[in-house]
Amino acid sequence: MLETALAEARAGLAEGGIPVGAALFAADGTLLGRGRNRRVQDDDPSMHAETAAFRAAGRQRDYRSTIMVTTLSPCLYCSGLVRQFNIGALVVGDAVTFGGGHAWLAHHGVAVTVLDDPRCIEMMASFVAEQPELWNEDIGVTE
Amino acid sequence: MLETALAEARAGLAEGGIPVGAALFAADGTLLGRGRNRRVQDDDPSMHAETAAFRAAGRQRDYRSTIMVTTLSPCLYCSGLVRQFNIGALVVGDAVTFGGGHAWLAHHGVAVTVLDDPRCIEMMASFVAEQPELWNEDIGVTE
Repeated sequence: MLETALAEARAGLAEGGIPVGAALFAADGTLLGRGRNRRVQDDDPSMHAETAAFRAAGRQRDYRSTIMVTTLSPCLYCSGLVRQFNIGALVVGDAVTFGGGHAWLAHHGVAVTVLDDPRCIEMMASFVAEQPELWNEDIGVTE
Repeated sequence: MLETALAEARAGLAEGGIPVGAALFAADGTLLGRGRNRRVQDDDPSMHAETAAFRAAGRQRDYRSTIMVTTLSPCLYCSGLVRQFNIGALVVGDAVTFGGGHAWLAHHGVAVTVLDDPRCIEMMASFVAEQPELWNEDIGVTE
């Protein structure tokens, strides 16, 4: 399932965007929605990868059996999304480059799997090193 | 400032939507963005009122001096937004009908003002009583 999220992140990078991708799956592995960070592409600060995937999945009545897969540990905004809608499981490609809310979610009962996939880590670490200003803007970090 | 958020909520209600409105202001009172819940109108579960107002404000580099005004206490998704982007202040019209994340935000240093405005409370309480299924869908509550 990480491949789908990774493909989204790579597409975002190719567009000049922030390379974070995500996908929401049903328990049986059916893809419900996929998306990528759209800050640069759409000038939209509200579309992080996870929110974009959630949005693409449309209106669902029950998220408890769904799985959110993301190339990077979700920030508090996206972690709040997972928790509010009771998304049952979270798969994180990279929790090395950025430590978002995955530990908070695990503490609150979300089944969290951290893969620390070298492709995700390398892609994100390179991006943060090359464009720190853009990355800081995306997570609300100010000097 | 609550009037702007309330006008958004009322417009949402008139459209058949969930009546929650929000607006993001600069410290001097300048309106940066306003919006309302768009689940019904756009079939978009990711556009809560606060995220819609945040989105309408466009890309901002520093939110520390901004004020998020909302007719209803923000859910954890929207509270995560406030916290991740370090929005400095939150004004809540109604924390009676729904207790979202405003206490969590206050605990983490956000300047929270709860108005418990009768117009906000009455509007939201009526809506929840009339359309409990739609409201529960919006906050991820399942039976």
